[in-house]
Amino acid sequence: MVSGNFEKYLTDNLGAFAKDVVRLASQRSVSARNEGVEECAALVERMLKETGATTRVLKLDGAAPLVYGELKSKKGGKTVLFYNHYDVQPEEPLELWKSPPFAPEIRDGAIYGRGVSDDKGELVSRLKVVESFLKADGDLPCNVKFCFEGEEEIGSMHLGDYVAHYSDLFKADAVMWEYGTVDTKGTPMVTLGVKGMIYVEFTARSLSQDAHSSLAAVLPSAPWRMVKLLGALKDEKERILVPGWYDGITSLAEDELAVLDEMPFDGEEYKKSYGAERFLGGMDDDLAKKALIQRPTCNIAGLWAGYTGPGSKTVLPKEAHAKMDFRLVPDQDPEDLWKKLRKYLDDNGFADIEMKLESMEPAARTSYKHPFAQAAIKAAEKTYGRKPIVELGSAGTGPLYLFTRRYNMPSVDIGVSATDGGIHAPNENLKLENLRKGMLWIAETLEIFSAS
Amino acid sequence: MVSGNFEKYLTDNLGAFAKDVVRLASQRSVSARNEGVEECAALVERMLKETGATTRVLKLDGAAPLVYGELKSKKGGKTVLFYNHYDVQPEEPLELWKSPPFAPEIRDGAIYGRGVSDDKGELVSRLKVVESFLKADGDLPCNVKFCFEGEEEIGSMHLGDYVAHYSDLFKADAVMWEYGTVDTKGTPMVTLGVKGMIYVEFTARSLSQDAHSSLAAVLPSAPWRMVKLLGALKDEKERILVPGWYDGITSLAEDELAVLDEMPFDGEEYKKSYGAERFLGGMDDDLAKKALIQRPTCNIAGLWAGYTGPGSKTVLPKEAHAKMDFRLVPDQDPEDLWKKLRKYLDDNGFADIEMKLESMEPAARTSYKHPFAQAAIKAAEKTYGRKPIVELGSAGTGPLYLFTRRYNMPSVDIGVSATDGGIHAPNENLKLENLRKGMLWIAETLEIFSAS
Repeated sequence: MVSGNFEKYLTDNLGAFAKDVVRLASQRSVSARNEGVEECAALVERMLKETGATTRVLKLDGAAPLVYGELKSKKGGKTVLFYNHYDVQPEEPLELWKSPPFAPEIRDGAIYGRGVSDDKGELVSRLKVVESFLKADGDLPCNVKFCFEGEEEIGSMHLGDYVAHYSDLFKADAVMWEYGTVDTKGTPMVTLGVKGMIYVEFTARSLSQDAHSSLAAVLPSAPWRMVKLLGALKDEKERILVPGWYDGITSLAEDELAVLDEMPFDGEEYKKSYGAERFLGGMDDDLAKKALIQRPTCNIAGLWAGYTGPGSKTVLPKEAHAKMDFRLVPDQDPEDLWKKLRKYLDDNGFADIEMKLESMEPAARTSYKHPFAQAAIKAAEKTYGRKPIVELGSAGTGPLYLFTRRYNMPSVDIGVSATDGGIHAPNENLKLENLRKGMLWIAETLEIFSAS
Repeated sequence: MVSGNFEKYLTDNLGAFAKDVVRLASQRSVSARNEGVEECAALVERMLKETGATTRVLKLDGAAPLVYGELKSKKGGKTVLFYNHYDVQPEEPLELWKSPPFAPEIRDGAIYGRGVSDDKGELVSRLKVVESFLKADGDLPCNVKFCFEGEEEIGSMHLGDYVAHYSDLFKADAVMWEYGTVDTKGTPMVTLGVKGMIYVEFTARSLSQDAHSSLAAVLPSAPWRMVKLLGALKDEKERILVPGWYDGITSLAEDELAVLDEMPFDGEEYKKSYGAERFLGGMDDDLAKKALIQRPTCNIAGLWAGYTGPGSKTVLPKEAHAKMDFRLVPDQDPEDLWKKLRKYLDDNGFADIEMKLESMEPAARTSYKHPFAQAAIKAAEKTYGRKPIVELGSAGTGPLYLFTRRYNMPSVDIGVSATDGGIHAPNENLKLENLRKGMLWIAETLEIFSAS
């Protein structure tokens, strides 16, 4: 349990912590355009050093720097790794911002600026929790490590290389993931994993050049071929037809289903906000809630061929493309599935279809019963005075497995943000009260986990 | 049969005729960008007047001017309508032209410039055939009318309005269509019709906004809906599944099949130039030749949804689009088929799919036995000393039906161009010898038809 000193230090210094969020968010670091990334890494290292951490700026060819740090507890014990990122989304559309995205402003109890929630506010919160422990208690409840990368917003494409190359550095007993929120009612959410993904671009080619569409009477059509391929991927019930796709998937256990059951889910609100008349295949809310966590998907993220401008053009396109993301659940092995997908195409007359792998990552999930998950849950109860929402896994995907698989460690997503914090959007914000409570939550989680 | 005087006049004045092609092609008239269209119409009218024709420049709201003209034969008799267009394709890519597209140049026995074949060279050839008759023989073999439009390259979208509005003007016994060619071996081709077409854009909408693709587990997908719709349009044998689509289509008669049989067709060359391993469904050359003329098609000219840029984006697209052209053969009624298509969608669970009509036109075909077709065939034999290639119909589409249906008149496509004339491409050209022979061919056709 965090000490009274800790709580006082944190409360007294909240204004200073907010200024540090402003300081970091004032440094532009748009990875998509390689703007300020190196400068931001240098600033992150300075801020880490100010906390008292031993730091290293890791650098691999062609990759943004990865800022590493560590601090040991005098008592030794467990080690918790903080994963965060210092890069941010582009700021556009600029005209919708009420204050400049890279000159953050504090107004009405919140900080406004690009990255103040995602993920610079979160990153600073970890530093300041550590600082508060050291200043208030003179020690940390456990050893801590910091892994701050600069390419999260563009796909973390070198994170795996960094982890492999500096494998010893990142070893820990648990990883606290980048981001956690309270919902609009102020209830904290503990998220315990992500789905995996295979992202592939299919290409069908039928001709060496586009032809006039009058020749469609005799020449083969790439878009028709694509339609046929896609039609062969799923059945009427949305089940993926690749043999073995669902092999080995473990169903949720009774107790997990009970946790799922407790998770609030407003199906009507979901449907309303996306203008959907009903869920896919007419699922009810319970099924939909489960599907988000436990159902593999096969999504067409992009599809194109031929003429896509205004009016009409009579062309028989030489090629057609589809970008597909297959979300995976735990116990699905993307490398194995990739082979099965290729074999399915080959076995069903689609050997000519090109498959370009864009990315591949397995799912990662921590049991809600794991001491680290339980620490986060109990810490939430203590800090917020109510039971947190426990999400067994997110519908989204991330490179969590790089840590959880390699080091066989648990993870939790908790933090200082809010679901209405405007991440990736104009007027991104971080409420000071959420920063304060989120830091207490993080600190309490470390205390409880260290004592477990 | 054309007179010796005629032939001499034509030969003596070929250089002057070529200069008139240069004169007309020097006036830029890119309808797609509305560049010089009015000016070109005025020039066409001046050139028509110089021929001795009575002229009118017709104008409908929002349409490019249509230049009309007529000249009567002293002997009266039949009337032949010349349909041509004075607008041209854009000149890009400019860097591939050896001489400026709108400053045409005569070199190595050919005129080079945008529109010198398609269709200004053809247009001038009609004027100069008429001039030659008047100068050499003092009369025309028949009455002639001229219909020169300025929107052919952008879909002739007002031609139907003009024909309907000025219905009396265009009445004739036959129409000579815009363009005719000799092939690379110098054999003339007589083309006797075009396919019809329905061009439609299908839209599937499933959400009011794009969603993160993790939500594909529960939200309906527009691109998947489009895939399903398209999959329901054709069977494995490429037959269109809309009930009644093939109703009433008359097969080619024995004698037409014999004409088809005589038409040369180099299937290997076709496949080679488009890099196709085989024809659609494994058709042999005879079937392919027939399909180009007689097979209705259902082509995907454009297809798009979601993210189509480089790399990956995980999006569940709110909508998906397909641009489709359905080519039609004689005896298919596009208005009827449009209703059948809508009904088929409604009856098969696709009532939500939007259908936007881009254009609709029936096929048009003239019997090779018609005296006008026979005149063109015999004239070709006389002029070129060999049997022409008779194409019962083109695989392409055009607004021919506006004339052939309304006035129940025959048509032929003959002219002064060549299959290697580079139309719609850089270095478009017209060989002077093709201009000379083509004009003789046109003149001879008028003579034979008038005497029939």
